[in-house]
Amino acid sequence: MKKGKVSNAVIRRLPRYYRTLDTLYREGTVRISSSALGESMGVTASQIRQDLSCFGEFGQQGYGYNVADLRQALSDILGMNAGYTSVLVGAGNLGRALMRNFHFNKNGFSLSAAFDVDPKIVGTVLNGYPIYSMDSLDDYLAEHKPSIGVLTVPKYAAQSVAERLIAGGVRGIWNFTNIELDVSDSNVVVESVHFADSLLTLSYLISE
Amino acid sequence: MKKGKVSNAVIRRLPRYYRTLDTLYREGTVRISSSALGESMGVTASQIRQDLSCFGEFGQQGYGYNVADLRQALSDILGMNAGYTSVLVGAGNLGRALMRNFHFNKNGFSLSAAFDVDPKIVGTVLNGYPIYSMDSLDDYLAEHKPSIGVLTVPKYAAQSVAERLIAGGVRGIWNFTNIELDVSDSNVVVESVHFADSLLTLSYLISE
Repeated sequence: MKKGKVSNAVIRRLPRYYRTLDTLYREGTVRISSSALGESMGVTASQIRQDLSCFGEFGQQGYGYNVADLRQALSDILGMNAGYTSVLVGAGNLGRALMRNFHFNKNGFSLSAAFDVDPKIVGTVLNGYPIYSMDSLDDYLAEHKPSIGVLTVPKYAAQSVAERLIAGGVRGIWNFTNIELDVSDSNVVVESVHFADSLLTLSYLISE
Repeated sequence: MKKGKVSNAVIRRLPRYYRTLDTLYREGTVRISSSALGESMGVTASQIRQDLSCFGEFGQQGYGYNVADLRQALSDILGMNAGYTSVLVGAGNLGRALMRNFHFNKNGFSLSAAFDVDPKIVGTVLNGYPIYSMDSLDDYLAEHKPSIGVLTVPKYAAQSVAERLIAGGVRGIWNFTNIELDVSDSNVVVESVHFADSLLTLSYLISE
């Protein structure tokens, strides 16, 4: 599997390819043509072929793609089988929503613990996940070396907690704080979920 | 302001342009060159000029962009000054996180009410927003005609609640349910926040 210079636009489409293939797989679909796959994703068949060509040879002329194989290849490309681990920092409403409803495991990440400052919830367990005190975060990071930190703290705490995560050796931060984190002087990758961008897109689309 | 055929990729960049301009505006920046704007967004200057040309003439050779003017133009293009209204359906953890922390007003939407099935929270007020019973949703939609519905119900309720929102006349659904809603037979626009896509992107990036 080669990974050269893959554009951001291609990277952003990979999860959607995986999601579409995963749905097809669960529905029992064995194979699909690139045009049918494109149609279900709103992209052209040639776009799909071009995107996938960044990672190797997939599919066969006249046959299309084997759904199980392509799903598996995409999950490998996305790093879903790398055994990544995560901790969540900030067990407020949003943090708890993720702990309760988001399937970390289905997306290749095990979540091992959450951290919060609220003494009322520190020491409790939510949906199987222990909630520890923020005071123990640095020791926990040093001991368990999680791959990423899920950042669901209030805005004012975002940058300082991010710096603790970076000092603790995480490779990525999944950022829900709506703050542009400053992670220069590190190799840490930040992926932000921008609720506002999504709502403004909807706003544009209903204005058309 | 012309709005012809604007590609999805351009539409997706508009909120980021707005967000960047808004930050510059709040910092007191008066003008910015397209190359400096591009640099702060990770796109090229010519990309910016090309994107903005879909909507009219902005900026001036040798001067760049007036930050306040371009921010204002983008907010108009995005429909942020159209007086859109919204209701939120599903006041669980995620719904409550949005009600508590998301700035609907700053993004051009007023949130007028939330709806839930839980008798323990129906009749209460959270952060100024009343929480009503799901039984009253249809009457409320008929009377208040909100522009969009924010869908934060559990998966199993997603499609049926979406259909009630559509029957009630909303123009858009902001979908957090991770379900691909079927809104054919309607002109309703669905914008989904896919947490999994974002995490898988991070997974890919830390694998590189």
